[in-house]
Amino acid sequence: MGKRVKEFQSFRKKMNARILKQDHRAIKRFFGVDTLTYERGALDEKTKEMLGLVSSMVLRCDDCISYHIMQCKELGVTDEEMFDIFSVALTVGGSIVIPHLRRGVAFLDELKGKG
Amino acid sequence: MGKRVKEFQSFRKKMNARILKQDHRAIKRFFGVDTLTYERGALDEKTKEMLGLVSSMVLRCDDCISYHIMQCKELGVTDEEMFDIFSVALTVGGSIVIPHLRRGVAFLDELKGKG
Amino acid sequence: MGKRVKEFQSFRKKMNARILKQDHRAIKRFFGVDTLTYERGALDEKTKEMLGLVSSMVLRCDDCISYHIMQCKELGVTDEEMFDIFSVALTVGGSIVIPHLRRGVAFLDELKGKG
Amino acid sequence: MGKRVKEFQSFRKKMNARILKQDHRAIKRFFGVDTLTYERGALDEKTKEMLGLVSSMVLRCDDCISYHIMQCKELGVTDEEMFDIFSVALTVGGSIVIPHLRRGVAFLDELKGKG
Amino acid sequence: MGKRVKEFQSFRKKMNARILKQDHRAIKRFFGVDTLTYERGALDEKTKEMLGLVSSMVLRCDDCISYHIMQCKELGVTDEEMFDIFSVALTVGGSIVIPHLRRGVAFLDELKGKG
Amino acid sequence: MGKRVKEFQSFRKKMNARILKQDHRAIKRFFGVDTLTYERGALDEKTKEMLGLVSSMVLRCDDCISYHIMQCKELGVTDEEMFDIFSVALTVGGSIVIPHLRRGVAFLDELKGKG
Repeated sequence: MGKRVKEFQSFRKKMNARILKQDHRAIKRFFGVDTLTYERGALDEKTKEMLGLVSSMVLRCDDCISYHIMQCKELGVTDEEMFDIFSVALTVGGSIVIPHLRRGVAFLDELKGKG
Repeated sequence: MGKRVKEFQSFRKKMNARILKQDHRAIKRFFGVDTLTYERGALDEKTKEMLGLVSSMVLRCDDCISYHIMQCKELGVTDEEMFDIFSVALTVGGSIVIPHLRRGVAFLDELKGKG
Repeated sequence: MGKRVKEFQSFRKKMNARILKQDHRAIKRFFGVDTLTYERGALDEKTKEMLGLVSSMVLRCDDCISYHIMQCKELGVTDEEMFDIFSVALTVGGSIVIPHLRRGVAFLDELKGKG
Repeated sequence: MGKRVKEFQSFRKKMNARILKQDHRAIKRFFGVDTLTYERGALDEKTKEMLGLVSSMVLRCDDCISYHIMQCKELGVTDEEMFDIFSVALTVGGSIVIPHLRRGVAFLDELKGKG
Repeated sequence: MGKRVKEFQSFRKKMNARILKQDHRAIKRFFGVDTLTYERGALDEKTKEMLGLVSSMVLRCDDCISYHIMQCKELGVTDEEMFDIFSVALTVGGSIVIPHLRRGVAFLDELKGKG
Repeated sequence: MGKRVKEFQSFRKKMNARILKQDHRAIKRFFGVDTLTYERGALDEKTKEMLGLVSSMVLRCDDCISYHIMQCKELGVTDEEMFDIFSVALTVGGSIVIPHLRRGVAFLDELKGKG
């Protein structure tokens, strides 16, 4: 696992803990809803994470893309499926998505230990 | 099929024809890529349309939402699955998505002939 | 109270009921968080509604703008304060905000019965 | 000149007057900067209006698109040049721009009296 | 005061000077409007800075968030009030705001010398 | 040529090659449309690159801004013209564009070897 993946996970974990420690009711509940959203429902977890990934790409948030790539990978999304998701994001969101696509693919490769 | 659905389809069809008649190379090719993007690949068409729907919701484009709801419906996405997609869009995109969710659900109901 | 105000309120109420009737857990909880967010905390309700209004303007959502203008009005925000909020939205969000500003001011005037 | 063009111009004129009458310093000055921005500088007015049009399209604001199409038309932008601008907006902004492209082309055609 | 705070302030100051030195009329006037916007009006400076902060968060601009956190802090916004602002941004803007919230809270802690 | 310019070009080149090697049809065709879009048509290449630059600025994508600044520079856009483009982006997109303007100007200066 590469350096960028580790740094991302460590900062994410540390700051989520810091934010929740503040004990703000609406923020804590939002984090609860966020977790609930990706739990198996009519759609399975894999599909929901794919929906989260494509949303993060068209909204162009690198950290969200990294996170959902990790979740997708863990739930068995193949590279071919991953690029189908990237393709929808690129077509819907336009060339402005390309820099985020580059960093997303670099993150995916690093995650697979060949970055 | 309701009035809003018919008007949407008729304006969409008329203007797409008008735009393509202009015969602009890059625009025509973009429309080609747009079609290609949703064809079966590693992911099936239903999954790709669900990805298109959630992207349209977080980017808050009513016409795109209407279009992908129609496609999803045709490819067998159930109401329960549809609301799972809406839920991801709402959590990722925030309360700013709610007015589009309202219009999307109204469109879906109209599509089912009970709007 | 003008026609546009009434239509907005009636569609909003009807569709919120329709959405909640679907009984989707994450969506219902999101609506709960949305309500909780604007309750008095360290900041009072008036300030929170002003924050909601300016956010809606820079994100350019007409329905959200209408809603928060109504709430602000009810909580005693004066016209002068309202235009200070509009001014921050305009400077931060740019001229792309102007069409929403026009519709927002028209809604405000209609709300005051002089539209 | 078509109905949609007239309604757009009349609402725009009426509400701009209403907003400026409020006499809010920062808002008035913003409107001044907005005017100044499109005056001839190192780039001529035609080029600046084309920049305004493409910006409005990728940010997906129908009224701003209508306004800049009118300005471009008046400054001699041809249909072929107009579609080159649309093409850049479509590629940069993605398929989410298409509904705005449809309405923009319909507005342009109406402006030319053949809508 | 932490390293990130210093770097941010130094780059900001240097580049603002560089931009203004170019002596572009519309850009200089825009900077003037930007300053004017946050001066005391019907609303006091503290409230205006809070409006600036929430706008920056929903539009997801890290540098703007850092800047307005500094201004808010200086004008006496408490941590509890700060998190109320973050909460509105999170609810309105959705989970896509979370990475910016993490960096904003880290910046705030660094500003307080405990980062 | 400065360090930031070199790093940007090297990562861009490496990742574009990586993405195209994946051989995903819709993604490859999108890249083709992207190239086609900026070729001489009714508008010349210089004007099209200026349209690409202003679009990248209002959509706030640093890498896209860097890329189009490089292209504009190569096609003879002067500093005065560059700041006219920046001015349109700033007025349309608002103060949220300023941090990207700062980084864009720093990139331009580095490109000219005086950063």
